[in-house]
Amino acid sequence: MRLNIDVDKSVFSKRVEKCTQVMKDQEIDVLLLTKPSNMYYLTGDGRLCAFTMVNSDKQVAVGVPQTDVEDVTELAQFNHISAFEDEVGMIHTIADFFKQFGVSKGTVGLEHTFLTSSMMKMLTHPHAKPEGVTTKDCTDILSKLRMIKEPIEIKLMKEAGKIADIGMEAAIVSLKEGMTESQIAGEGEYAMRQAGAEGFWRSYVASGIRTRIAHGIPTNRKVKNGDIVMIDLHPIANNYSSDICRMACIGEPTSEQVKAHEVYLEALQKTTGKSVAGVGMVELEKTLHGVLQNAGYADNIFGPTIHGIGINFEEAPLPPGHAFFHGEKAPPPLNENIPIAIGNCGIYTNRWGIRLEDTVVVGSNQPQILTKYPYTLKR
Amino acid sequence: MRLNIDVDKSVFSKRVEKCTQVMKDQEIDVLLLTKPSNMYYLTGDGRLCAFTMVNSDKQVAVGVPQTDVEDVTELAQFNHISAFEDEVGMIHTIADFFKQFGVSKGTVGLEHTFLTSSMMKMLTHPHAKPEGVTTKDCTDILSKLRMIKEPIEIKLMKEAGKIADIGMEAAIVSLKEGMTESQIAGEGEYAMRQAGAEGFWRSYVASGIRTRIAHGIPTNRKVKNGDIVMIDLHPIANNYSSDICRMACIGEPTSEQVKAHEVYLEALQKTTGKSVAGVGMVELEKTLHGVLQNAGYADNIFGPTIHGIGINFEEAPLPPGHAFFHGEKAPPPLNENIPIAIGNCGIYTNRWGIRLEDTVVVGSNQPQILTKYPYTLKR
Repeated sequence: MRLNIDVDKSVFSKRVEKCTQVMKDQEIDVLLLTKPSNMYYLTGDGRLCAFTMVNSDKQVAVGVPQTDVEDVTELAQFNHISAFEDEVGMIHTIADFFKQFGVSKGTVGLEHTFLTSSMMKMLTHPHAKPEGVTTKDCTDILSKLRMIKEPIEIKLMKEAGKIADIGMEAAIVSLKEGMTESQIAGEGEYAMRQAGAEGFWRSYVASGIRTRIAHGIPTNRKVKNGDIVMIDLHPIANNYSSDICRMACIGEPTSEQVKAHEVYLEALQKTTGKSVAGVGMVELEKTLHGVLQNAGYADNIFGPTIHGIGINFEEAPLPPGHAFFHGEKAPPPLNENIPIAIGNCGIYTNRWGIRLEDTVVVGSNQPQILTKYPYTLKR
Repeated sequence: MRLNIDVDKSVFSKRVEKCTQVMKDQEIDVLLLTKPSNMYYLTGDGRLCAFTMVNSDKQVAVGVPQTDVEDVTELAQFNHISAFEDEVGMIHTIADFFKQFGVSKGTVGLEHTFLTSSMMKMLTHPHAKPEGVTTKDCTDILSKLRMIKEPIEIKLMKEAGKIADIGMEAAIVSLKEGMTESQIAGEGEYAMRQAGAEGFWRSYVASGIRTRIAHGIPTNRKVKNGDIVMIDLHPIANNYSSDICRMACIGEPTSEQVKAHEVYLEALQKTTGKSVAGVGMVELEKTLHGVLQNAGYADNIFGPTIHGIGINFEEAPLPPGHAFFHGEKAPPPLNENIPIAIGNCGIYTNRWGIRLEDTVVVGSNQPQILTKYPYTLKR
């Protein structure tokens, strides 16, 4: 499978138009973006060491390394482009765009959930930002725009879902005693790149007793007979992501593990079933937790249950509690065409953990499940 | 090759002791760290969603997800450990440690080059940080400590260098017409995981005209006859990183490309040769740029020339200009046992780019080169 789906470039100018509406509502005069996913969403290109500015007149200015001007010109939709040589040049380019936009006072929106304090200092350097311009977090503007996906985005995410399935199959089929967790991750990642992924977010593979920890970053632990293995993959294809987690066992799982896996699957499927327009994030969380609690795992639940997914593999909507600490707003009832990853929490004992995760699109009457690899603990 | 080099755990308490000295010099009473590499350096474990606090009495407190307590206890050196269920719990755990350390005023050091504004807000939430405690950037404390590597660290980085060579060989040997850039990256990554890498930082593969851009994130562009390919890999093994970049050609490179490759190699080798104790970063930069400028490429140079490397693949020391904007201090003359990656800038025309990079340890009399894969543009 080789993917290369063309995205009609008119979508970007429509998004910029919507963006300026939300900017007005939130009293922001200019956006200054450096998060690649936000820049991609509005222009068709997002890359490292670049920035995008958008003003209330729907004018889009991009600043890029001097090496990248032609490449960005081919890929992105914008009104102005400037090249810089280094950080000093970048700062001056930002200042020039403020001038060009006629903005010497008002408010510039910055990505508080992305910028480190040192990056913030650089973007608001007195040689970049006019003194009279105040700053404000613009995270919510982009989250609002990006949350409900357009038909083309759903199409791209379906492809990302297929690639996740291919990666999962390769990883699970490869499993044998003596492999390291890292090698298992490598099987999944290799297959995803073969199948058309341009990349992936960090893979998690944990085995045996390491399945009890919250973030199973692969190690050189060798899997042995009787080990259960937790595999969590996140391919990126055509700029969009998907998220899948499955469990598998080398040999025979214990009856306790089989039971927990069955209960978790029931919780996942019940929550997925409720993923229709109008449902609240809290209701989905309660549904998933409810099944686990009723089966006696109330003290074994850890981790936020659900997260939005799209260009980033974790994005808005987030459940209210989690959202608050991650600089996002608590989400309204979910609309149709919001993709979410369900199953980000797990059942954790002090000897093993069980978790399953799928990428699901909230539907008008029924959800669309984008990751379809079977849920078989025993192979 | 399977690596699993044991690190004597006494190194961590010695580092904490040195750390408290630097804290005193910089008038910081408590460190509150969440950057995994900094936490690993001081305790032997660094992971997502966790924090480490260090006070001036060499007391180390760690806060971890409740699922991870036993795993962290096995891996890390600390005096106090607390578990939390979620972000609210994390905040309260931080408050508890401030109390336990008897710190209600003074200064807490935070990682300004790592924390986003929203993470900063969470860590300094009124329920976490006592009102009387002010905050200060502690980036430089950890950079100072981590810059000169201990013998065990050099040993681990040598292993990371070997893995980079194995990855590069696999990627270059695999090259054939019709492969995508992403698939080429996959060959290198797969081989590195096979050879003992627990993971890797983002791989770069750019081919043909895409070699002209500064950050060649792999795409589904298919390589064709006559394309040059830029491959940049960054394995992580035993928590340490290495960095290698090589060029290869599908078929025959042009004479222009061959010449630029020769010049770049000369620049790299001359700069590597000067990497001995007492040399300044600026002198190394000038050496590399000098060779390129003298060969007529003055207008084709882009990108910072050199960066430090260790647990992170980009860390202090950074050249002064670059350091300033990345929240780091300008480095003093380089000491023995500072590993650097040389060759982070390139020769860029509007049709192609050439870049080569090696991981090199500054030596007393001569440098140690950790990445040794041959520099052959023609295969």
